[in-house]
Amino acid sequence: MRDDFDAEAVVAAARAGDARSLGRLVSLVENGSAALRPVMRAVTPYTGHARVIGLTGSPGVGKSTVTSELVRSYRAVGLRVGVLAVDPTSPFSGGALLGDRVRMQDHATDQGVFIRSMASRGHLGGLAWSAPQALRILDAAGFDVICVETVGVGQAEVEIASLADSTLVILAPGMGDSIQAAKAGILEIADIFVVNKSDRPGAQEVVRDLRNMIAMARYEEGSWKPPIVSVSAATGDGIDELIARLDAHWTWLGESGEREQRRVARAREEISAIAVADIRRRLGVLPGESRLDDLAGLVAAGKLDPYSAADDLVAG
Amino acid sequence: MRDDFDAEAVVAAARAGDARSLGRLVSLVENGSAALRPVMRAVTPYTGHARVIGLTGSPGVGKSTVTSELVRSYRAVGLRVGVLAVDPTSPFSGGALLGDRVRMQDHATDQGVFIRSMASRGHLGGLAWSAPQALRILDAAGFDVICVETVGVGQAEVEIASLADSTLVILAPGMGDSIQAAKAGILEIADIFVVNKSDRPGAQEVVRDLRNMIAMARYEEGSWKPPIVSVSAATGDGIDELIARLDAHWTWLGESGEREQRRVARAREEISAIAVADIRRRLGVLPGESRLDDLAGLVAAGKLDPYSAADDLVAG
Repeated sequence: MRDDFDAEAVVAAARAGDARSLGRLVSLVENGSAALRPVMRAVTPYTGHARVIGLTGSPGVGKSTVTSELVRSYRAVGLRVGVLAVDPTSPFSGGALLGDRVRMQDHATDQGVFIRSMASRGHLGGLAWSAPQALRILDAAGFDVICVETVGVGQAEVEIASLADSTLVILAPGMGDSIQAAKAGILEIADIFVVNKSDRPGAQEVVRDLRNMIAMARYEEGSWKPPIVSVSAATGDGIDELIARLDAHWTWLGESGEREQRRVARAREEISAIAVADIRRRLGVLPGESRLDDLAGLVAAGKLDPYSAADDLVAG
Repeated sequence: MRDDFDAEAVVAAARAGDARSLGRLVSLVENGSAALRPVMRAVTPYTGHARVIGLTGSPGVGKSTVTSELVRSYRAVGLRVGVLAVDPTSPFSGGALLGDRVRMQDHATDQGVFIRSMASRGHLGGLAWSAPQALRILDAAGFDVICVETVGVGQAEVEIASLADSTLVILAPGMGDSIQAAKAGILEIADIFVVNKSDRPGAQEVVRDLRNMIAMARYEEGSWKPPIVSVSAATGDGIDELIARLDAHWTWLGESGEREQRRVARAREEISAIAVADIRRRLGVLPGESRLDDLAGLVAAGKLDPYSAADDLVAG
């Protein structure tokens, strides 16, 4: 980072609505810049206001069109909306899914909307490291609602859920056995199920499968039971109901104390990710560098077990 | 772990072909047991023999049917085959995808085949922590070929690729825009592209898209350019060609020195994952426990930035 980088000034500009400064701050996260330290100090007093909505689901279910409709609805009542599209599939290229972003172009000229794709670099600890920090920046910049969208099933989905106040799991008919495949984990992470493309054949079956799945799960007294909302994001059908369900969830989060608990849990994960990344960096880059290579050579050759190697590395 | 657990004896039994002992060892990995330490010491002298084939792709492309056909082919020439199905979608339930396993039932009574699903628990460092150790156990148990199958696109895919000697990226027609979505990362990880369901409409388009994608990429002199193999795993069409391509890749790995490099890189990741998990455990479970909660409360309330909290935690 250049010496003349003034974290306070860039944060102030971002808070005043300068999209370029805001983009610059998010880039610091993407690049794992050392300048994040003063930035995080500068944004901290302004955080805690934004409502975070996670959107996840397999490729092709229409996450971006649903996001775009949510943006439209929240903008209609004057809220400022940030969209963070995290792409766990491209740790290499540093790029992100531009195809989907095209659907967001409706909002491209709206100053109350900030849209940003972000790659997740594995070496820093991936999504768990970068997404909370990017959210923190958007939060401090004054967005009322932040939509975090991620592709793919799997770990990324779980990580998004742990970040969001409300997590939407989006499904669609005609996606092969993806619903079957996704089943194992989605019940635990979904606050609301969204069945998109509700006008297509098979949508009713998806709703029925979800209903059966929910019926078989146990819910404690006072806990949140995820509703199922059918939408057609392409036509806008069902979006009003989705907004109403999101509001109901938001109210429940506040009344149950769950909102506060989730935010503390999120901070816990965020601190851990930063601490672990720092330690990992120290293990890998400092004297450990060639040591780790030597140890890896011994382990690969079957001359040393990986636990003894890890002990050696940590003690190093 | 019980005191009477004799790592040497269980490893010896697994090496002698006792599937129950082998299953028990893999369960230790799944549960993050402390007994892995002596187990890893015991298996180390017997490792380095197995050839590891990674299979990845979106849900519904037919990974399990392709795996099943590979198992059949390798069994036909007398090789012992292990199958490890890693499910990054279910860190909670501890279960794994049983639906797909049904397709493996053809091999269920074959003593030369070991099939195991494994959940990946995030708190230990996920797939990066568990998969290499499970592979190491199967390797030491004398399997000639180990197929590692994972669902979903994303980080898990990348992690599987870093484990395998050869990585198959499996695609199929009619999967919505999943190929588009997957594009960003798959070129970097695929050693061989497999277009499954080659008899279905759209298969030729998938092959053409891949061919264009490969044509646009740059390959250095002597590097491996991923071939595209069309198969119908349901009928067995194309499987012989796939086996031939896998053999060609295996030969290339050996001649180029890449095999050794990949194995050292794998050991590097394995050691790092164990070291980081150990440190993380120490940070979270030892005195840090309540300290982390306190820090998280301050960060969630906007009173402390996460970097200062992480510094405090690590210094603690």
